[in-house]
Amino acid sequence: MKSYTSTGEISADTLYASIGALTLESGDTLADVTLAYRTWGTLNQRGDNAVLVCHALTGSADTDVWWPGLIGPGRTFNPAEDFVVCSNVLGGCYGSTGPLSPRPGVRERYGGHFPQITIRDMVNAQARLLDNLGIRSLRVVTGASMGGMQALEWAASYPERVRAVAPIGVSGRHSAWCIAISESQRAAIVADPKWRDGHYASDAPPTDGLAVARMIAMCSYRSWTNFDSRFARRRNKENQHEVATYLNYHGLKLTRRFDAMSYMRLTEAMDSHDLARGRGEYTAVLAGLTLPALLVGVSSDLLYPPHEQRELANLMPGAEFAMLESDHGHDSFLIDTAQLDQLLAGFLRAQPQPVAAKRA
Amino acid sequence: MKSYTSTGEISADTLYASIGALTLESGDTLADVTLAYRTWGTLNQRGDNAVLVCHALTGSADTDVWWPGLIGPGRTFNPAEDFVVCSNVLGGCYGSTGPLSPRPGVRERYGGHFPQITIRDMVNAQARLLDNLGIRSLRVVTGASMGGMQALEWAASYPERVRAVAPIGVSGRHSAWCIAISESQRAAIVADPKWRDGHYASDAPPTDGLAVARMIAMCSYRSWTNFDSRFARRRNKENQHEVATYLNYHGLKLTRRFDAMSYMRLTEAMDSHDLARGRGEYTAVLAGLTLPALLVGVSSDLLYPPHEQRELANLMPGAEFAMLESDHGHDSFLIDTAQLDQLLAGFLRAQPQPVAAKRA
Repeated sequence: MKSYTSTGEISADTLYASIGALTLESGDTLADVTLAYRTWGTLNQRGDNAVLVCHALTGSADTDVWWPGLIGPGRTFNPAEDFVVCSNVLGGCYGSTGPLSPRPGVRERYGGHFPQITIRDMVNAQARLLDNLGIRSLRVVTGASMGGMQALEWAASYPERVRAVAPIGVSGRHSAWCIAISESQRAAIVADPKWRDGHYASDAPPTDGLAVARMIAMCSYRSWTNFDSRFARRRNKENQHEVATYLNYHGLKLTRRFDAMSYMRLTEAMDSHDLARGRGEYTAVLAGLTLPALLVGVSSDLLYPPHEQRELANLMPGAEFAMLESDHGHDSFLIDTAQLDQLLAGFLRAQPQPVAAKRA
Repeated sequence: MKSYTSTGEISADTLYASIGALTLESGDTLADVTLAYRTWGTLNQRGDNAVLVCHALTGSADTDVWWPGLIGPGRTFNPAEDFVVCSNVLGGCYGSTGPLSPRPGVRERYGGHFPQITIRDMVNAQARLLDNLGIRSLRVVTGASMGGMQALEWAASYPERVRAVAPIGVSGRHSAWCIAISESQRAAIVADPKWRDGHYASDAPPTDGLAVARMIAMCSYRSWTNFDSRFARRRNKENQHEVATYLNYHGLKLTRRFDAMSYMRLTEAMDSHDLARGRGEYTAVLAGLTLPALLVGVSSDLLYPPHEQRELANLMPGAEFAMLESDHGHDSFLIDTAQLDQLLAGFLRAQPQPVAAKRA
């Protein structure tokens, strides 16, 4: 089943589900779609103790690696009670079908031929995975950034299968601001002569462009205070500003674990994010999302400023807003995990058990 | 005297001053330095009615072009009373000695051989220009962003020649945050194969990299609200997000008017900005800047957040803080000029006239 390639390391615990052909929102069809996923805990007989975790742009199914503070006894994701599931997104490069996957019928990977996808396509693929796993009802869908978009799309696309959502640091439709910052990252990739419209050789990817894209992204994920407290104006022995060295290091690091074409398609999917697309007027669509929801904002988030989550909480009838107070910027959801865990775990404790569970 | 080349248009009203050899802070010496400048109004006999305007990163001496709302009768810069001077910075590409200038002794421009410079070097060159013009005392030095750095360096380097300063949207030392955002822009230029360490042919400059740098910069100059109010999620006829098209347009536009090597050296100069370098402990240095100062912050400035100007105003004994209330981000100093003009003109009216003027 491991019909994939990845530039990054994929956990040995990763599982693979074949979910068949998937028709995308664009009308294109992807044949033989595979989702890579991981689970923690056990699904109960009623199939209703599952929790779906959705990762952000460059994440993977390894929730225990990128969100360790949220998994464990008494925490938001408690494998002793919950069946925790996280899958690499459609279009990703950590085992799920994406640009690095073999293109059906030819002896090459998709590369530049991989179609544009949307957040809804990702969620539709996840729904198939849950079918495969026998999960009937999700206790909660949560995630931050691109993961939060998926949580919101779950609420809109499959309200009957989700009892609550907890989107973090995200909006109901990608802002012009976020599109602009994404576009400058894509422009950096496209400017790399090795890009070749995505049709680059596997041994000659546009790493210089991808590294610059990551540097831009890293700034947008952090904050004035985060960089000041970590680096101030310190210089290293080569008289380079430490923050510049740090940024270059992270740019290079991503090129060793992430595929540029995947980066392109996933950022485009984020830009497509709009809960109202094809569903009606924006506020009316949100008024129809009635399930319990916790919208978490990060006080210092420059990409998805808290007014976006406040607006969502105001427009969604079953929603409440909570602030993650942190100076680190958007990435605070990966940094101040103890505070975030308290917010999420508290929200989940307040939710009613499913009817079947009450009877038991 | 027009011994320069520029990728941009230089006003026919531009004047050129030869200020001789200039020894830089690094110890390097630039021979035969020229500053391009413009003036409005007339210098009085006492040589004390001059106002020095300092431009930002990609600006020129054409204050009337990039700050039209601040020049005119009753405005901050009033040619009927003031002798307004603005020079293209050392290292720039609008007529002053910079990477596009001929390198002494060889038949080529400086290009990649142009040395690193600092904000102090820029100010030292300006001081020579004022000597040439017979200006003894400046009524005020003002500017925003890199222009604000020059205003602050004037206060520190030539307090006896300046009666007041009005730095806008700037800090006393470049933050790790600003250095990081600059570094990602430089990385975009360096990633362009045409960059060649600055030794690119004049007909093959690294325009792709410079365009990406500008796109990154444009985001940092604006704000969530600015882009949302102008573009929201609108798409053009080609189904591209308008904000993406706008950003690409501005990236390309800069490559037609600005030199990549100049961009490199000027952003490095900004990163070098630190009022305390070689002068002692930071707060002590600022405590020594006793002249009247108006520190203007922009309420939505993401690059130089208002707490930086508040801190300066707190540490400088003769300083006061004023907020430019605007949602447009750092660039508000170019957008909400009516409000800015009121702040600056009000500050200047409150300053005492020079002793000689009182006698007259």
